[in-house]
Amino acid sequence: MLPRGRPRAMGAAVLLLLLLLVVGFFLFGRDPEYGLGTTGTLDEDLYGSRNRSASSPQLLLPPKCEVLHVAVVCAGYNSSREIITLMKSMLFYRKNPLHLHLITDAIARNILETLFRTWMVPALLVSFYDAEELKPLISWIPNKHYSGLYGLMKLVLPGILPSSLARVIVLDTDVTFSSDIVELWALFGHFSDKQAVGLVENQSDWYLGNLWKNHRPWPALGRGFNTGVILLWLDRLRQTGWEQMWKLTARRELLTLTATSLADQDIFNAVIKERPHLVHPLPCVWNVQLSDHTLAERCYLEAADLKVIHWNSPRKLRVKNKHAEFFRNLHLTFLGYDGKLLRRELLGCLNRFPPGAEQLQQALAQLDEDDPCFEFRQQQLTVHRVHITFLSYQPPPPRPHDVTLVAQLSMDRLQMLEALCRHWPGPMSLALYLTDAEAQQFLHFVDTSPVLSARKDVAYHVVYRDGPHYPVNQLRNVALAQALTPYVFLSDIDFLPAYSLYDYLRASIEQLELGSRRKAALVVPAFETLHYRFSFPNSKAELLALLDTGSLHTFRYHEWPQGHSSTDYSRWREAQAPYRVQWSADYEPYVVVPRDCPRYDPRFVGFGWNKVAHIIELDAQEYEFLVLPEAFSIHLPHAPSLDISRFRSSPTYRNCLQALKEEFHQDLSRRYGSAALKYLTALQQSRSRA
Amino acid sequence: MLPRGRPRAMGAAVLLLLLLLVVGFFLFGRDPEYGLGTTGTLDEDLYGSRNRSASSPQLLLPPKCEVLHVAVVCAGYNSSREIITLMKSMLFYRKNPLHLHLITDAIARNILETLFRTWMVPALLVSFYDAEELKPLISWIPNKHYSGLYGLMKLVLPGILPSSLARVIVLDTDVTFSSDIVELWALFGHFSDKQAVGLVENQSDWYLGNLWKNHRPWPALGRGFNTGVILLWLDRLRQTGWEQMWKLTARRELLTLTATSLADQDIFNAVIKERPHLVHPLPCVWNVQLSDHTLAERCYLEAADLKVIHWNSPRKLRVKNKHAEFFRNLHLTFLGYDGKLLRRELLGCLNRFPPGAEQLQQALAQLDEDDPCFEFRQQQLTVHRVHITFLSYQPPPPRPHDVTLVAQLSMDRLQMLEALCRHWPGPMSLALYLTDAEAQQFLHFVDTSPVLSARKDVAYHVVYRDGPHYPVNQLRNVALAQALTPYVFLSDIDFLPAYSLYDYLRASIEQLELGSRRKAALVVPAFETLHYRFSFPNSKAELLALLDTGSLHTFRYHEWPQGHSSTDYSRWREAQAPYRVQWSADYEPYVVVPRDCPRYDPRFVGFGWNKVAHIIELDAQEYEFLVLPEAFSIHLPHAPSLDISRFRSSPTYRNCLQALKEEFHQDLSRRYGSAALKYLTALQQSRSRA
Repeated sequence: MLPRGRPRAMGAAVLLLLLLLVVGFFLFGRDPEYGLGTTGTLDEDLYGSRNRSASSPQLLLPPKCEVLHVAVVCAGYNSSREIITLMKSMLFYRKNPLHLHLITDAIARNILETLFRTWMVPALLVSFYDAEELKPLISWIPNKHYSGLYGLMKLVLPGILPSSLARVIVLDTDVTFSSDIVELWALFGHFSDKQAVGLVENQSDWYLGNLWKNHRPWPALGRGFNTGVILLWLDRLRQTGWEQMWKLTARRELLTLTATSLADQDIFNAVIKERPHLVHPLPCVWNVQLSDHTLAERCYLEAADLKVIHWNSPRKLRVKNKHAEFFRNLHLTFLGYDGKLLRRELLGCLNRFPPGAEQLQQALAQLDEDDPCFEFRQQQLTVHRVHITFLSYQPPPPRPHDVTLVAQLSMDRLQMLEALCRHWPGPMSLALYLTDAEAQQFLHFVDTSPVLSARKDVAYHVVYRDGPHYPVNQLRNVALAQALTPYVFLSDIDFLPAYSLYDYLRASIEQLELGSRRKAALVVPAFETLHYRFSFPNSKAELLALLDTGSLHTFRYHEWPQGHSSTDYSRWREAQAPYRVQWSADYEPYVVVPRDCPRYDPRFVGFGWNKVAHIIELDAQEYEFLVLPEAFSIHLPHAPSLDISRFRSSPTYRNCLQALKEEFHQDLSRRYGSAALKYLTALQQSRSRA
Repeated sequence: MLPRGRPRAMGAAVLLLLLLLVVGFFLFGRDPEYGLGTTGTLDEDLYGSRNRSASSPQLLLPPKCEVLHVAVVCAGYNSSREIITLMKSMLFYRKNPLHLHLITDAIARNILETLFRTWMVPALLVSFYDAEELKPLISWIPNKHYSGLYGLMKLVLPGILPSSLARVIVLDTDVTFSSDIVELWALFGHFSDKQAVGLVENQSDWYLGNLWKNHRPWPALGRGFNTGVILLWLDRLRQTGWEQMWKLTARRELLTLTATSLADQDIFNAVIKERPHLVHPLPCVWNVQLSDHTLAERCYLEAADLKVIHWNSPRKLRVKNKHAEFFRNLHLTFLGYDGKLLRRELLGCLNRFPPGAEQLQQALAQLDEDDPCFEFRQQQLTVHRVHITFLSYQPPPPRPHDVTLVAQLSMDRLQMLEALCRHWPGPMSLALYLTDAEAQQFLHFVDTSPVLSARKDVAYHVVYRDGPHYPVNQLRNVALAQALTPYVFLSDIDFLPAYSLYDYLRASIEQLELGSRRKAALVVPAFETLHYRFSFPNSKAELLALLDTGSLHTFRYHEWPQGHSSTDYSRWREAQAPYRVQWSADYEPYVVVPRDCPRYDPRFVGFGWNKVAHIIELDAQEYEFLVLPEAFSIHLPHAPSLDISRFRSSPTYRNCLQALKEEFHQDLSRRYGSAALKYLTALQQSRSRA
């Protein structure tokens, strides 16, 4: 320790030392982890030093708030899920603003644009680049790797990323961070003047070419390099004519080799074999490769610290090796991590907030915490992360009378899905309210269900949980917005439609000429059974018989008759043709409407009035309600939801619902003027009865 | 860069530089983050340098696998929950073996011993010290702080921790790590020869003594130090006569000050004021204090990196300050983190495995992944983390005929709890199968329910989720093991007991002289309603009336009559006194038995035979089944569980259940010999019928 007031002479000596320190650092300190002059041998210091002291050459870290750039190629449904775990791990440890450059196909773009817009992560900028446009640049290269054409796109990044962008980190979607990406970025500072590509050595014997008889890999320096994690010095590559360079090399090699086996990685290695001065070898811990025959153990057992894990086997998390469990745990950490916790600003940086985030913060800040309805209003304002088409999905072909079943559910209704699939052979758009961890359970559930995995026309949209109330109408709106057919059947997850309903609805839509003639809502009469097991009626006649024996009831006949009384069940018994019914207070039938129908009002969360308000909206917009004589749908029993229990037990809950109803009516009057008067009258009458 | 083959002269120059570097480091490098010679001023470099380069003086990190020692004082239910989040954050980032020294009261010890035993974290050793024994050492100090006597126990650690222990990190339960604790441990290396206590400056103006008129804090150096995070060099404290030292200081101050306001912290500060050479000031980032009027912003906005957050306000997470949301997110990360993911070994260290862990690994490794029942067998072997008495709890006073209701549930049955509390005024022991995140929702649920938070005789035991099947019998065994009354009512969460049942059971137990006379299982007849809302019968007469009108049924009368037929409902209608019934195949009544009854067989997971097997076990052990004439309990409707749906739809599921039944019978024959023959015969008959 140097207490204050030491003689100045000492100070001068210290200054000298400082100078030597700095000089010494630049001569010495630059490559502490992988030794000097290594160029592709696994067995030397490249696997990180036993000496923990040198594990982070932190003296080269960039300034606190510098923006780091990351590029990822991402295509299709599976990679769109995969990249999210990568993003979560990166965002968890990062302390710098990030600019993400995503090269995506249309599917991934659709998913990820929605996801990042709703994720609202501060200090994260996302730019999209169309992978379609890049295909002609690389489609001439024959390729046998499972990543298909998309893997090869990493080769053309210097040409397609903005010319103002000098350096970028390129990542595969199947890597997981276990450290702050700024430490990786800092390694650019270790490049010599000529080096332009930072790579970790390949942790397998593939490129040694002795794995089997006649195994002929592409040329590489020693074991070659892995391209799951790349530091690309774009400027330098552009200056050295990278594009010409890799194309020439690839063309020449393809004269004797029929195709690339490992996509871009083969070509990167062939180029580096010819021009070793281009590559800057990175410490092995920045790309710990977990393939089936990995040699990575030599790296991670010695290393003080793992930085990036790479699941570079087609088996991904199911890969088998001695420490697979350890690495899976790291990965599962982020797979199940609640992504909303990453909505945290960077302390001490000027945070760039995503669109809408600041207004939202203000609106939330203006809420009165002492308002008994505070939780309701907060829930209404909550922006949930939304992952549309979470699983592989085949959109229905355009058909003029097609109908999508729209519903929402949470984990406790998963067991309804198989039955629903059996009852509704048409397209479905379902919103699922899940935690990040539950989303993974859901994935497993579908994977292990033959019924569900066979269906490609069911779109599952995950809305991530946040807040104490079930945001039923926000969920319905997500599912509704993603329905792609001209008509939608707005149902609930506890209902099973008649087996014939899908065909019957399409025929009815055609016959009634809904498309051209009228603005109509087709009512599907609702029934309920109280039995766990019952034989579902195959026809209206069978249904009526069950109704007569008391095995079935009209829906909520005992508890809430006004919800469906307008449907007029006695008329329905006899009806041979669709008949028109009038709106009445608290009417909430299940209806089929055009896809462009009004949205649900998101102020109604949890239990109560969420469908009633929507039906009022339809009526106010002069939809006619037509009851279909052969349509029906049956509610199966379940325990009361947490929200309905709260409604019953809590006067506050009931008062808040009343307040929300009144606010809804005020808005209604504003929009529809005197035409909305009848709804208000009905409300007042019901209140005076209550 | 130094390519190979440079002239040797250069090498010599380099060696010289290296020497200077090392010397320079020792003169210079030791206190990079908080400047030189600071002794208690907030405004200087103590808050960490703007220059990120100096943020981690990593050159002093201990060797890779060195054991680090941590001491925490923990007492009561709330602190026992709090410490788990601290532990999760610490274990998440740690890369060294840890030895945890816990000073606990009986409550915390009971909870934490079970928790750590079932958590099975490798390379974590836990030692317990009895806080009761320490009370006399500090109870003479008057104290006004909310931590009570326990806060003061930090003062006596040098005396009570093993004398072989030279250094220890002492933590409050309300801190959260955001970095590897080894970096904190490394700061011991920065102590000068005389320093013995490492502390972060207090980030409030408390000790300046000007907060209000006549505010008279204990003496401190400047703003004083906070004792939420302490590096204690035990050896040195013992040598300097710490015990005498702090007692003398405390006694002297207590002549003029009536009590400590901030417990141990006041005394630490008073001692340091007198002996400043003892303290080694730590960088502010190691104890970012989030009280209501915190000055911590000066620290964290400048710092490159936060290391430890300290929720040192009685409001804890509800504290209000500008960046509270940011810090809450960090904390919530670990609050909801799946603790089982921390069961990961330390790569490259000799891992000390917790008792049973290695046998368990072997048993799991021996399972055949291609066995169709693999998932069932894996689930049976799974050791779930168990947090007994998750919430505050008042054990029932010892009463010879008292009965505890025992049941298990998951999140989707929370809404049953209030009703259950209304129906059962006695003690309950409930096992809840939850994720870590759900456990927090559960806590909130109880906090906001007046009915539940008023009940202190309900013990909630959280069993953390792991695996695809519901481990129903493991849950029952946890709840059963924690029941403290001589008798238990083994019920299910979907049943509501008759309002009078608790009193009636106690009276019956007394009348039947169960304790001394006989080994009996009292049968509580089970009924069911199919209606969401119904008026619960107030008496047997009312129940019979409902039965006659068809509003109630005997339980599973249509689906599974053999489950309860032995109860003989027609006899029960007329019965005035308890009557004995005989076991028959598939009998599964709800029974009241002594607490030491046989455990449930954990091989039955998910749906099917989990109670049947237990009743067989009772019968095999010659319990007599006595049906109580006035007892009843009613099942409320709910949707079929995921497991029952799987049972119905999957032949594999049914086959596995059959295999498990057969293995159960083999075990039964082994234990009971020919007496078990009747069960096997019954099984074979039922199989031949199927």
